[in-house]
Amino acid sequence: MKKIRLALLGLGTIGSGVLKVLTENGGMIRKREGLDIEVVRILVRDTSKKRSLPVAPGVLTCDADSILNDPDIDLVAEFMGGEAPAFEYLQKALRSGKSVVTANKEVIAKHWDELEEAAKQSGAGLYFEASVAGGIPIIKSIRRSLQGNHIQKLMGIINGTTNYILTRMSEEGKGFQEVLADAKRLGYAEPDPTADVEGYDARFKLSILSTISFRNRIRTEDIYCEGITGITADDIEYAKQLGYAIKLLAIAKKQGNVIEARVHPTFIPLSHPLAAVRDAYNAIYIEGDIVGNLMFYGKGAGDYPTASALVSDIITACQNEGSHHRTKLDDDAVMINKDWRDEYYVRMSVKDQPGVLAEIAGIFGQHGVSIESMIQKNRGVDNATLIFITHEANEKAIMRAIEEMKGSPSVSSVDNIIRVER
Amino acid sequence: MKKIRLALLGLGTIGSGVLKVLTENGGMIRKREGLDIEVVRILVRDTSKKRSLPVAPGVLTCDADSILNDPDIDLVAEFMGGEAPAFEYLQKALRSGKSVVTANKEVIAKHWDELEEAAKQSGAGLYFEASVAGGIPIIKSIRRSLQGNHIQKLMGIINGTTNYILTRMSEEGKGFQEVLADAKRLGYAEPDPTADVEGYDARFKLSILSTISFRNRIRTEDIYCEGITGITADDIEYAKQLGYAIKLLAIAKKQGNVIEARVHPTFIPLSHPLAAVRDAYNAIYIEGDIVGNLMFYGKGAGDYPTASALVSDIITACQNEGSHHRTKLDDDAVMINKDWRDEYYVRMSVKDQPGVLAEIAGIFGQHGVSIESMIQKNRGVDNATLIFITHEANEKAIMRAIEEMKGSPSVSSVDNIIRVER
Repeated sequence: MKKIRLALLGLGTIGSGVLKVLTENGGMIRKREGLDIEVVRILVRDTSKKRSLPVAPGVLTCDADSILNDPDIDLVAEFMGGEAPAFEYLQKALRSGKSVVTANKEVIAKHWDELEEAAKQSGAGLYFEASVAGGIPIIKSIRRSLQGNHIQKLMGIINGTTNYILTRMSEEGKGFQEVLADAKRLGYAEPDPTADVEGYDARFKLSILSTISFRNRIRTEDIYCEGITGITADDIEYAKQLGYAIKLLAIAKKQGNVIEARVHPTFIPLSHPLAAVRDAYNAIYIEGDIVGNLMFYGKGAGDYPTASALVSDIITACQNEGSHHRTKLDDDAVMINKDWRDEYYVRMSVKDQPGVLAEIAGIFGQHGVSIESMIQKNRGVDNATLIFITHEANEKAIMRAIEEMKGSPSVSSVDNIIRVER
Repeated sequence: MKKIRLALLGLGTIGSGVLKVLTENGGMIRKREGLDIEVVRILVRDTSKKRSLPVAPGVLTCDADSILNDPDIDLVAEFMGGEAPAFEYLQKALRSGKSVVTANKEVIAKHWDELEEAAKQSGAGLYFEASVAGGIPIIKSIRRSLQGNHIQKLMGIINGTTNYILTRMSEEGKGFQEVLADAKRLGYAEPDPTADVEGYDARFKLSILSTISFRNRIRTEDIYCEGITGITADDIEYAKQLGYAIKLLAIAKKQGNVIEARVHPTFIPLSHPLAAVRDAYNAIYIEGDIVGNLMFYGKGAGDYPTASALVSDIITACQNEGSHHRTKLDDDAVMINKDWRDEYYVRMSVKDQPGVLAEIAGIFGQHGVSIESMIQKNRGVDNATLIFITHEANEKAIMRAIEEMKGSPSVSSVDNIIRVER
């Protein structure tokens, strides 16, 4: 029986989940995996705080160095969240040869290179399955099951809060603010929901997923990002009528040496497997040149689902000791394309008078954008609502066309532009 | 660069797929994984047969021993299918220390113990991701990402042919025989479709999935098996009206030390993620005590998807050399339960006369089966169709109740019994 001395950095929801799983299922892990994992130290802010779990005396500490400098600790698992001081701790652990398991998407997205380098130098392992999509084994699948594939495309619902909000808006016909308030009350959204609803959380995760999928370092600044705060109940209703769901998708595509990566609300056909992903569930849809389409679906957050990924990484780290597998990046230069091609949903309010539609269609046409379908709503008042779905066009061409429309006296407002994927 | 000498057993559709992937993506595998995989020998039935792929002279052979006795061959990949002679070849390869990668569900389901034992003795690796659900990395995920979980339940659509047939029956309202004939013509069904439509193929796969999920050897004879040949267009139509899809599911559950495993047509609510799995796609829905629900979705067959799994296993086998990971079975005794609890859909034809419904309901009641809902169809002719959905009841109780009904003069025929899962 191999004995592992593990330190935890953090004992919040996720840390407590890991501790519980290692206790409840520790016997099974000993028996099946031949590993006796002992939690010997836990870094907390306040050692005197009352804990819901029994922790042996002397295990809690506020002193990170007492963990990072202890040569008897084999492995460090981190779930403090945030960039500082987590990054510094993890780098120090790796440099001293301790393998690291982390759920910290921000640190991995921002400091992947430095952490990989530290791991490589010392021979320690770096594992971050829990940083994306909770208990869904997407990172290990990409790294260890799709090695024969060039991954060409991935589209993910990787933020549970926004999917929960969009699901309720869609099923109850309610507006964003109303559902957000309810989501906060029910614990589905943070008191400050910015990172979720503005797409920043999904952007960190997409940086990680696209980096390992394309074997090129895709940084957060390479990723276009737009949140869901501008989505209205009307947009969702029109989407349904046109046969689409609206989801906050994290999208990355690679063609040759050109990569695009973006997080934004997206029209997705109701027949697409991602359209059926409800509530706080996550799903990642991925296309490889050999395997075709795959989708991975499950709980993307929560103490236990995240602990499932962390405990799996802890076990893997122990078993791989001395032969940690690293994701080698390609050395080919790639180009980040911000002028991708998409179809677009455009909702606008126009003066209800003859000739307006011809004018709008003309502006689209001048910018090389052709219309797939148009619906007119709310006729009979001063303004009419026009809804367009375009054929595939360049992002920049659409934006130029919209700018020009906004200058037209016939157009009262352009109310929303939402990209369409299939 | 590590050089690997690989032999292929078989060069049909899947073997050709593997050869193509190793050629087309060989450069990527060399660069990213540091492996130079050379196919040095291919076992075929006829070396003179014209091949669509260029194969270097001297690579093709009809002599299995020239591969199995060659100490210079590191690794054997098998996709001949069938029990003999594949089992003998694989056992021989493992005994001589060659790692084995296989897509052969029948050999793994029937001879897992002997092959694992041979691998353990020699230290070789045994990999069979491709034996279940083609390119979906379900086996590696269970073995290497869910180690912290007790898996409690799995439900899979793991036969593409039957899912294709059921999808077309459902979407086109056609009967089984008509769609089967068309599926044969289009290559979705074999000329002899027995193994698929009777559920035997799914049963092999469920034996493998449940063995590694529950860490107990579940043999094909432990698995109840019923195919889709009795499903009619009427059943599918009534299912829809009641809010269900009919799918051929492979189901396995473990509670304490009691295991049930079965393959049969199943009513599944339209809101369940499995209900949306169309055509020849596969999906496996799995529940762990820690991770909650996960679903894996993708192409379950075909040359390239299967080759994706095989090539991944080939790479993993090369990288794990000397430290192959084995699935240790639990030594706890388990009981196979064939009297599981389920809800049931029952369709019967009865004399259209007063008192019949009371009689049927009475028989259900005497066997402890309570009715959740009942619909009467086709009233006004001599016979009426009664459709029941029961509450949860024991399999044997339902079957006894049905036997008794069949003896009643009021019952013309009991036309179908289909289990319901949620």
